[in-house]
Amino acid sequence: VRLRHEVVALRTRHPFVIARGGAADHRVVQVTLTDADGATGQGEAAPNRFYGETPETVAAALARYEPVLAQGNSWSVEAVEAELPTVLRGNAAARSAISAALHDLAARRLGVPLHRLWGLDPARAPRSSFTIGIVDDEAELRRRIAEAAEYPILKVKLGSARDEWVMRVVRDAAPEKTLRVDANAAWMPKRAVRMCALLAEHGVEFVEQPVAAHDLEGLRFVRDRSALPIIADESCLVATDVARLAGLVDGVNLKLAKCGGLREAHRMIATARAHGLLVMAGCMVETSLGITAAAHLAPLLDFADLDGAALLAHDPMDGATITGGEIRLPDRPGLGVVRRATA
Amino acid sequence: VRLRHEVVALRTRHPFVIARGGAADHRVVQVTLTDADGATGQGEAAPNRFYGETPETVAAALARYEPVLAQGNSWSVEAVEAELPTVLRGNAAARSAISAALHDLAARRLGVPLHRLWGLDPARAPRSSFTIGIVDDEAELRRRIAEAAEYPILKVKLGSARDEWVMRVVRDAAPEKTLRVDANAAWMPKRAVRMCALLAEHGVEFVEQPVAAHDLEGLRFVRDRSALPIIADESCLVATDVARLAGLVDGVNLKLAKCGGLREAHRMIATARAHGLLVMAGCMVETSLGITAAAHLAPLLDFADLDGAALLAHDPMDGATITGGEIRLPDRPGLGVVRRATA
Repeated sequence: VRLRHEVVALRTRHPFVIARGGAADHRVVQVTLTDADGATGQGEAAPNRFYGETPETVAAALARYEPVLAQGNSWSVEAVEAELPTVLRGNAAARSAISAALHDLAARRLGVPLHRLWGLDPARAPRSSFTIGIVDDEAELRRRIAEAAEYPILKVKLGSARDEWVMRVVRDAAPEKTLRVDANAAWMPKRAVRMCALLAEHGVEFVEQPVAAHDLEGLRFVRDRSALPIIADESCLVATDVARLAGLVDGVNLKLAKCGGLREAHRMIATARAHGLLVMAGCMVETSLGITAAAHLAPLLDFADLDGAALLAHDPMDGATITGGEIRLPDRPGLGVVRRATA
Repeated sequence: VRLRHEVVALRTRHPFVIARGGAADHRVVQVTLTDADGATGQGEAAPNRFYGETPETVAAALARYEPVLAQGNSWSVEAVEAELPTVLRGNAAARSAISAALHDLAARRLGVPLHRLWGLDPARAPRSSFTIGIVDDEAELRRRIAEAAEYPILKVKLGSARDEWVMRVVRDAAPEKTLRVDANAAWMPKRAVRMCALLAEHGVEFVEQPVAAHDLEGLRFVRDRSALPIIADESCLVATDVARLAGLVDGVNLKLAKCGGLREAHRMIATARAHGLLVMAGCMVETSLGITAAAHLAPLLDFADLDGAALLAHDPMDGATITGGEIRLPDRPGLGVVRRATA
C-alpha cells in the first residue's frame, strides 16, 4: 500500500473563535492510499495545535507510518491501526487519516457504504448541531443565528467574560431551538456550577467540557452539582479515558482527530455504553472527507456535532451532508466521498 | 427475513463433567435465516441451563424474535441486535444464533470471510486450549491427557474434593504443557487463595472463575492475594459486567451464549481493553457452526478456549478447526461453515 498526501487550506465562512482563541490556520491533510491492485482509499487529518499537531507534523508522521502500510495487508485494518502507535505515538489526526483511508479502501472493494460494512442503519443517525462561535458584537451574533435558521440544534461556544450576555442573546434570537453549550475547558469548577444553573434556566440540553482537560475532579465536582448532563471532550481522547471518566461525567465526545482512528472510535463508543454514558461525536474544521468518516458512526451516537464542513466558505469534497441538521450519508461505496467539481 | 431452526443432539467423546456436575443434554439449536432475495445465513445457539436456557426455551424465544427479523433490514445488524432484547430479555444463546446468522448473511453477500469484514488478520489468533473435564479415575485421567497430546495448552477443570490430586496427575502426565485452570465458581474465597498458591507452584498460567458468580468481592479478595491472573467467566456475561469487574479481576472470558451476539462480544472486548483487562473467549459444547462464529473474533483475543466441537464424538459441521490448538478460520465467505457430508 502506497501513501500520498496533500495539504489543503480551508477558509471558514466566518472567523471561528472558541474559548482558547481563534484559529486562522484551518489546513487539513488529505491522504490517498493505493494498494498493489490499484484500489484506493482516502482519509483526512484535521490537525489541532491543542492536541499537538500541525499539517507539518502530520506530514512528518505519515512518512513514518508509510512503511507499516507498505508491509501490512490493507484488509487487516485492526492490525495496521494497532501497529501505527508502536512506530510513533501520539499524532492521532495523522493516524485517523490512514484509518479512514483503509476503511474507505475495504468498503469500496466490497462495493458497500462503510455504514453497511458496520451493520448500521443510517436512518438512526441523530441530528447534528451547528456551532455558533464566540462573537462580541450583538448584531453579528444575531446575524450568525439567523444564518443558521435551518438548524434546529445550535451548539453555543462559551468561555468568555460575556457568557451570560451571549446566552441571553442566543435564547432571545432562537427561542424554540435546542441549545447545547461548549465551554472548551474555560471555567473554574465553581464558575461552571453557577453557569450550569443559568444554562438550565435557558433550557440548555447539556454542557461540554466545563473545566480544564486535566481536571477530572473538577468534572466530578461540576457533575455532582449540575442538573445538566456534563460531557467530557478535551478530557477524553481515547477509550482508556472513557473508562477513567466513568462516574465523573454523564457522557463523552469523541473525535477522530483525538482518538486516532475509526476502530478506536468504535471502542470508545462500546466502552461508554458499557458504563451507561452518553455518546457524542464532534469534529474539527475539516472538509466533507473528514466529516463523512465520522458521520458513518452516527447511527451509534446520542448526539452529533458534525458541522465542520458546513462552517466552510467552500468545501472541496462532496460527502455526508447536514442540511437542516439531518445527517445524510452518501450511498456510494466506502466513505462515499468524491472531489467536488471546481467551478 | 424468515427464520428456520433445527434442534441438533450432540454427543461428546467422553462424559463432560465440570464442578457443577455433568450434562447429558448437549443439544444445540441451529438457525437459518433466509432473506427475501434468497440469501441465507446460519448460526447456532448452545443453550445452557446455568444461564437459564434449554433447546425448548431457545425455540420459544426464536418464535418471539422472528417478527423483528421479518420487519428489519438484514444489513442493519446493529439495530436488529439492539431490538431483540426489547422484545424478550435474556435468552442470550437464542439471540447469539440470530446474530451469527445475520453476520454470516452479510459477509456471504459481500463474498468475504467474516474476519475480513471486521478487518482482522486470522494469523493473529492465539492458540486454543483443550479442556480436560473432571475425572475421578487416574488411569482414565491419564488416558484423556494422552488423547490430547496434540494440544500444547490444556485447560483443567477443577472444583472437586480432589483438586490437589488432579493437578499432581495432570502436571506429571504433561510436564511441558501450558496449563490453565477453571474452577467454575466452585471455591470459597479462602480455599481459592490457597489453591492459587498451589497452582502457581504447578506453573499454571491463569485461573478462571475461582468463586461464585455473584461474589464480586470474593473475586477481588482472591485477585489481591494471588500471583496468577484471575479471569471472570460466570461473573461476566455482557459488556456492563466488564465495566463492573474492572479492578476486581485481571481478565474476562466472553462467550456468545452469555453475551447474546457478536456485536456485544466486540463491545466486551473493547471495554476490557479500555480497562487494561485480558480477554479470553470460551464456548459451550457445540458444533463447528457455533465455534466458528466465536473463532472469527480470535485475532482480538489473548486467550482462546474454543474446543467445543473438538470434544464431540461427531461434529456435523465443517468450519474453524483447532488442530494442534491452532485456530484455522475457513477461507469461505461468511462464517465459512458447511454441513459435513454424512458418511
